[in-house]
Amino acid sequence: MPKIPHRLYLTEDQMPTQWYNLRADMPEQPDPMLNPATGKPLTEEALYPIFCKELAHQEMDGQTRWVDIPEGILEEFRIYRPSPLIRAYNLEQTLDTPAKIYYKYEGNNTSGSHKLNSAIAQAFYAKQQGLKGLTTETGAGQWGTALSEACAFYGLDLQVFMVKCSYEQKPFRKAVMGVFDASVTASPSTTTEVGRKILAAFPESTGSLGCAISEAVETAVSSENYRYALGSVLNQVLLHQSIIGLEAKTAMDLLDEYPDIIIGCAGGGSNLGGLIAPYMRDKLTGKGNPRIVAVEPASCPSLTRGRYAYDFCDTGKVTPLAKMYTLGNGFMPAANHAGGLRYHGMSPILSKLYHDGYMEATSVKQLEIFEAATLFAKKETILPAPESAHAICQAIKEAKICRETGESKTILFGLTGTGYFDMTAYDAYRNGTMSNHVPTDDELAAGFQSLPQLEL
Amino acid sequence: MPKIPHRLYLTEDQMPTQWYNLRADMPEQPDPMLNPATGKPLTEEALYPIFCKELAHQEMDGQTRWVDIPEGILEEFRIYRPSPLIRAYNLEQTLDTPAKIYYKYEGNNTSGSHKLNSAIAQAFYAKQQGLKGLTTETGAGQWGTALSEACAFYGLDLQVFMVKCSYEQKPFRKAVMGVFDASVTASPSTTTEVGRKILAAFPESTGSLGCAISEAVETAVSSENYRYALGSVLNQVLLHQSIIGLEAKTAMDLLDEYPDIIIGCAGGGSNLGGLIAPYMRDKLTGKGNPRIVAVEPASCPSLTRGRYAYDFCDTGKVTPLAKMYTLGNGFMPAANHAGGLRYHGMSPILSKLYHDGYMEATSVKQLEIFEAATLFAKKETILPAPESAHAICQAIKEAKICRETGESKTILFGLTGTGYFDMTAYDAYRNGTMSNHVPTDDELAAGFQSLPQLEL
Repeated sequence: MPKIPHRLYLTEDQMPTQWYNLRADMPEQPDPMLNPATGKPLTEEALYPIFCKELAHQEMDGQTRWVDIPEGILEEFRIYRPSPLIRAYNLEQTLDTPAKIYYKYEGNNTSGSHKLNSAIAQAFYAKQQGLKGLTTETGAGQWGTALSEACAFYGLDLQVFMVKCSYEQKPFRKAVMGVFDASVTASPSTTTEVGRKILAAFPESTGSLGCAISEAVETAVSSENYRYALGSVLNQVLLHQSIIGLEAKTAMDLLDEYPDIIIGCAGGGSNLGGLIAPYMRDKLTGKGNPRIVAVEPASCPSLTRGRYAYDFCDTGKVTPLAKMYTLGNGFMPAANHAGGLRYHGMSPILSKLYHDGYMEATSVKQLEIFEAATLFAKKETILPAPESAHAICQAIKEAKICRETGESKTILFGLTGTGYFDMTAYDAYRNGTMSNHVPTDDELAAGFQSLPQLEL
Repeated sequence: MPKIPHRLYLTEDQMPTQWYNLRADMPEQPDPMLNPATGKPLTEEALYPIFCKELAHQEMDGQTRWVDIPEGILEEFRIYRPSPLIRAYNLEQTLDTPAKIYYKYEGNNTSGSHKLNSAIAQAFYAKQQGLKGLTTETGAGQWGTALSEACAFYGLDLQVFMVKCSYEQKPFRKAVMGVFDASVTASPSTTTEVGRKILAAFPESTGSLGCAISEAVETAVSSENYRYALGSVLNQVLLHQSIIGLEAKTAMDLLDEYPDIIIGCAGGGSNLGGLIAPYMRDKLTGKGNPRIVAVEPASCPSLTRGRYAYDFCDTGKVTPLAKMYTLGNGFMPAANHAGGLRYHGMSPILSKLYHDGYMEATSVKQLEIFEAATLFAKKETILPAPESAHAICQAIKEAKICRETGESKTILFGLTGTGYFDMTAYDAYRNGTMSNHVPTDDELAAGFQSLPQLEL
């Protein structure tokens, strides 16, 4: 029996009781969010109509390094956490690599992903503030499912705007949210002003994440007792997701292991930002220097081909402006089944860290992703979400390099979730009908034209 | 923080390395399988065309109490096991019960259920014997998925006969099996003699588990290099599934807990037989006396309304005869979405134990099942398989009795799997279109007419 177990679960008393706020150790803060009307930085109070107060505070707070996790949240975490740190012995053997491959697996819960970590926090604070409910958007459906679970747990209403093409292609995702009593509306819808405007201009629109965000935000700010929740991009979400990295680091420390390379898929950045948090701290404070690699789809390459600029977080231009790597809020990715990685922008924190040289980014094409996903399923017996498979794919590449160089590097990647609701995509891959599109420079240029013109 | 954790995972070195064979401690052995042509007990050798040799041996071996689990199987177990023992604190609180509710959760793997435990064993022995592949049937799809995973792991071909109505209603189940390179055929099919015969008689047949078994067995015995694998009912399957109960008992012992009541859903008996194994040993050897409760659907009530008689294991009457509680191999359960619990018979070991008074059985109607499933999902954040929800439903009933009597009983139930591929059923429940049918005495009588007439 190998000395290092296949799966390491922390015990309940080893689980983190604080989140880690990356910003506290950044030499330069991410640029502030701006009010699009005035071009002036937003205050915490200006966010109160959108987010509940504690979350608005977390969004703006760049100072507090360690944030206590309330007992009411820890209680729910203990129902499905800790997630395992898994040594991919069988994958290593298959690749015939001297590399040691570890992955932190977040898929063992009904939302099927890491999204539940922030959903619980956002629902808890909304309940604490006495709100009636939340609104949100969902694309692939994992975030909507996660928030449905969290709202059911704390007894909150939830209105989900689900990107229309997902709504139609993934009826079972909608059904899961229904079990948790969420109300799910296809977006664009006629229930919001922005939805009606988009439908008037594009009657055949199948929706986009940016558009669903616009609808959810409008619905939240129109009501006294509702607030809006977002599953990625935001600073607060990265704070909540730091639980992933903190657990992973505690487990790696117990095994006396330190990663040479840390790999995460990157859509809005929630998983990557959470996974790398304590190791990025090491980099920022000079205590360690692992390579950190963001992996994005070649079809939606915000870090690798986007611009570092102020942009709206949504298509309807109802949100504040954030400084981030972006393809432009008007960018429409081609048919790409990795539904969770279709967002035009990227977490401002990760954008800043990338811009300042603390991490790398790479992009991979879809057929390669599904090849990696299928191999992984066969060898590690977990059917990964297409999003997660981006990290798998890159981990395999790094392990193959080790095979060539003979180096026994330690690789840690984030396996964010399962692909049980993505079987249409797996079928397309096996049937040879899957798109492998990469946007042309002209397609990117069209997206950049939607960037707001700011006079700062 | 409560003293007993929410989730207890054994460490790798605490995991069982032997299976437990219930038969070794039974005062009377289950009646032997018979050759239907002669009415004589089958020999181990007679099973060799159907099962690989080691499994034929395990099928017939009533003596060996502890069976070493080969290292090649343990290696695969370590990839996804141990499964957690979970204390349902939140459900207890919701029910306001003094009962302590534990469940052993087997759904954290891609097959979505405990079925993988026996699939791995059966694939391993087939590979060891140098076979090319296996054949099997699947109804709800969990067993087929599990065996697909196991065959991909060991590098075996797999031919799955999938009950036609499931094949059509659950395309995503088929897709998952496809990822693992299994070949899936809708049953009844034209590829077997028995399939052609059934189609000639009933051209519109949507299939049944018994029919798919016939086709899989015929295909296996027609080829030198293939054998047949079955996911439940068999003695060998109960042996393999004892890993569930052994892990559960080790974990309960660590917590210094002993169940007053053990509850499992019962279709063919694989989960129930595995979960109760070490506790049934206590009963058989006078070391303990927990109540053991089998829960079956009221729509397919083999233990509670069936006969204890010799019957075919399949509809096509190509298998040996087994003495078991049965509704008759010709019994057709009404539309019942709890797909895994539609089998006409029951494990001969469990049938014998039930007949001899070592366990109880009860049945529940489908609407009650889904009510329990939905409550459980909201409180424990796991969306259960409809099959598993039978055990949840009964556990809730027992916990409510404790609330009335004030007794703090310890309840252990088996949560066999997840319901992610059963969303059509959940939708039917929420839409009010779900059947709650219970067979009439006349319907049962029709099934009993299919029982073989034996002159013994």
